[in-house]
Amino acid sequence: MEFDRRDIRGMDCQSRPGALESPWRETSDVLARPSVKGSHLSATSARITAIDTSDIRFPTSRELDGSDAMNPDPDYSAAYVVLRTDADDGHEGHGFVFTIGRGNDVQVAAIEALRPHLVGRPVDELCADPGSVARDLTGDSQLRWLGPEKGVMHMAIGAVVNAVWDLAAKRRGLPLWRLLAEGDPEWLVSQVDFRYIEDALTPERALELLRAGREGAAARTAALLEHGYPGYTTSPGWLGYSDEKLTRLAEQAVADGFTQIKLKVGADFGDDVRRMRAARAAVGPDVRIAIDANQRWGVAEAVSWVTALAEFDPYWIEEPTSPDDVLGHAAIRKAVAPVRVATGEHVQNRIVFKQLLQAGAIDVLQIDAARVGGVNENLAILLLAAAFDVPVCPHAGGVGLCELVQHLSMFDFVALAGTTEDRAIEYVDHLHEHFTTPVVMRRGHYTAPVAPGFSAQMRPESIDAYRYPDGTFWVADRARQEGGTA
Amino acid sequence: MEFDRRDIRGMDCQSRPGALESPWRETSDVLARPSVKGSHLSATSARITAIDTSDIRFPTSRELDGSDAMNPDPDYSAAYVVLRTDADDGHEGHGFVFTIGRGNDVQVAAIEALRPHLVGRPVDELCADPGSVARDLTGDSQLRWLGPEKGVMHMAIGAVVNAVWDLAAKRRGLPLWRLLAEGDPEWLVSQVDFRYIEDALTPERALELLRAGREGAAARTAALLEHGYPGYTTSPGWLGYSDEKLTRLAEQAVADGFTQIKLKVGADFGDDVRRMRAARAAVGPDVRIAIDANQRWGVAEAVSWVTALAEFDPYWIEEPTSPDDVLGHAAIRKAVAPVRVATGEHVQNRIVFKQLLQAGAIDVLQIDAARVGGVNENLAILLLAAAFDVPVCPHAGGVGLCELVQHLSMFDFVALAGTTEDRAIEYVDHLHEHFTTPVVMRRGHYTAPVAPGFSAQMRPESIDAYRYPDGTFWVADRARQEGGTA
Repeated sequence: MEFDRRDIRGMDCQSRPGALESPWRETSDVLARPSVKGSHLSATSARITAIDTSDIRFPTSRELDGSDAMNPDPDYSAAYVVLRTDADDGHEGHGFVFTIGRGNDVQVAAIEALRPHLVGRPVDELCADPGSVARDLTGDSQLRWLGPEKGVMHMAIGAVVNAVWDLAAKRRGLPLWRLLAEGDPEWLVSQVDFRYIEDALTPERALELLRAGREGAAARTAALLEHGYPGYTTSPGWLGYSDEKLTRLAEQAVADGFTQIKLKVGADFGDDVRRMRAARAAVGPDVRIAIDANQRWGVAEAVSWVTALAEFDPYWIEEPTSPDDVLGHAAIRKAVAPVRVATGEHVQNRIVFKQLLQAGAIDVLQIDAARVGGVNENLAILLLAAAFDVPVCPHAGGVGLCELVQHLSMFDFVALAGTTEDRAIEYVDHLHEHFTTPVVMRRGHYTAPVAPGFSAQMRPESIDAYRYPDGTFWVADRARQEGGTA
Repeated sequence: MEFDRRDIRGMDCQSRPGALESPWRETSDVLARPSVKGSHLSATSARITAIDTSDIRFPTSRELDGSDAMNPDPDYSAAYVVLRTDADDGHEGHGFVFTIGRGNDVQVAAIEALRPHLVGRPVDELCADPGSVARDLTGDSQLRWLGPEKGVMHMAIGAVVNAVWDLAAKRRGLPLWRLLAEGDPEWLVSQVDFRYIEDALTPERALELLRAGREGAAARTAALLEHGYPGYTTSPGWLGYSDEKLTRLAEQAVADGFTQIKLKVGADFGDDVRRMRAARAAVGPDVRIAIDANQRWGVAEAVSWVTALAEFDPYWIEEPTSPDDVLGHAAIRKAVAPVRVATGEHVQNRIVFKQLLQAGAIDVLQIDAARVGGVNENLAILLLAAAFDVPVCPHAGGVGLCELVQHLSMFDFVALAGTTEDRAIEYVDHLHEHFTTPVVMRRGHYTAPVAPGFSAQMRPESIDAYRYPDGTFWVADRARQEGGTA
């Protein structure tokens, strides 16, 4: 029974000297086992039969949606993966890496490099223990060289692992947040790779946190279903928007019930002062205005720039510098207090999040559903945040990131944090129409999903239209351009 | 004149608020300029006409060469790139990413994603200012999302940037180490991207270091040409080797003139004790024995394991834990002193090296020629090491890493560090025969290369044989295996 496993050896064996079952060995075993590599059918149980990928790109740069100091012209894209099985339930596992255009094909190639680890695997086993997949993929010693646990290869692993969770939740008939929130603490701990984080969080401590989280969980689930989870909106704040559009959208955000908005900053100081003044005038003194520099600055520049904007009472400064610079964030936080420091959307893995917490470098931890190694690594990161008592306010937007990450915050509320105070999920009103179960916002809150799965599934007609370069939209678009230049 | 540029605005503009010329804008300009994207020929000057790539793999896993605690069965591989021009000098720029097998195709795809930035560019401009290429590539805002500055995409940039330097050195008729060592300090500083490291190293401080390095440079060049640069060997220490082979190769290393060897550790403690004892017995008390755990441990485990091996006087412990764990390395270093802590072969960029130095986390900094963003980022890292007075002992081995990195250490000796004391380049005697100008070792020293370029060029017949999967070796190999299993 998948929720009754008391066996959590999996998380210890990696750090035991001379362990018999290291994830690396497991990996080569898996690759060696013909039943896994070869046969796609089994008398006893369903297996993964195929991993299909698509390069999906939306022409968002034409409206400057999503424009910021580092990303002037993003074309929101998805390296999309579908796991198919030979089970008669017809369920598929969907997942994706979010990118902003060029290189989405490289990301697709990385997902395809993982195919041999998945095709042929028993579906029941996979869905009962997605952590074993996560360990096999991150543990492939040859692929690991391309990271380790960072960048293109690691995001590809995250997409596949998330697709396994989507499949697992569909087969259980539960939205992912409930599958996780109702999971045994022992099972949840067995899903976490503690390698490289045990100096900050032991499996025993994680178990304590999850056991404590059970108290009042049922009441919180009920509250979530009734009121939803708070969101904040970035829609008014894109750098490419005019002051008039900023003001209009900021007023609209307040009217829609949002109590926090976010502005992009960092390209031009004069513009930032003017935009902050306009935004503050539009929303009044009580609505929080976060600012986001998207890594534009060095340490000294971040300190002077944020200090100069302090008169407009920014709630947090997000990504003031490189996501790799733990010590830089710590120095900035010390200098700009009481303005909070937030980061995470580009933080590569649990090891860097661990250090951001150990160094006291952040006030707000921003997980991203498609940057790290999938649900399992985000479990580790949520546990670290709980252990250090730092609130989690996820990064979202792009394409499908709101759909995915809402499940993780809702699990966090029910099973770990126990509160939504000073917590909110970023919301951007773009491209939701391409998903079969898009997010539903009500009075500035994310409505709790009830459909089984991870809300990761795109509409087939959207995939047919925006598949690059052969989707119907792109074919017509090229025809238009050739017509235009003729 | 390429060596007389006094203009170093390039390094400032990125951090000036509202700078007119940010690398991001430069990038989009480049993409927009049809002359760059389109035309392959120019009346005035030669241009880059093609970027050819190859997926090259050697079956090294069959001999357990290169086997360690994390990499039990590497197949040394190269994602190989050649820049071609329409100049009549016939020079090409060669570069590559070193990988250990699976995923080499993903790495090739990443290199191909960079093609639009290079094809059509004027060769003179490119070779006079490779830093402009490095900035354009790391500054492509859409590709940047796939890192930033880490993993598959960043290593691809490194290969292309290194190929540009190979071309530049060939056109100047100099080995790369001399091209760099004879470059004006102002020009060298203009080749460095100071973004995210200015809190530890300013352009002004870098200029001071390089100007100071000019004193006695001619004498050091002469000494280098006469005596070469010290090496140390890892050949005896692979985990897959028997104790007999370890002992024989360790004795051979001393006979060959090496004063330091390295052993792989971290898989099984009992084995490590036995192998360390055998190695110490073979080389005696005066030869340095470094040990390398290849990231196998967490912090606590690293401390206990290294402490238990201290009786055999290990010179340094290399990669005791994750390359991402700056604070972990600092804690380990404090606990295992006087055993030195070394890392770097998997450190993703200058920003993490900066923090390793700021945190006092390492005694020895190990650059890798093919992990970061090429020569330009390694210049930044060598300058950081000089600023913090930490010796640089490069990682090498694999395929072609010795050939490349010797140039960087020799530049460091002549123009920055001014000494080889406590410095040595790793040497492994594998696969050199596949290069047109392989490294030449004499009495444990790397002989200074005299052939123009970066020593990056593989023999055409090696490429034809080991191109995967269609090279003659791999075709014959599949035929043998089918024969075997028939």
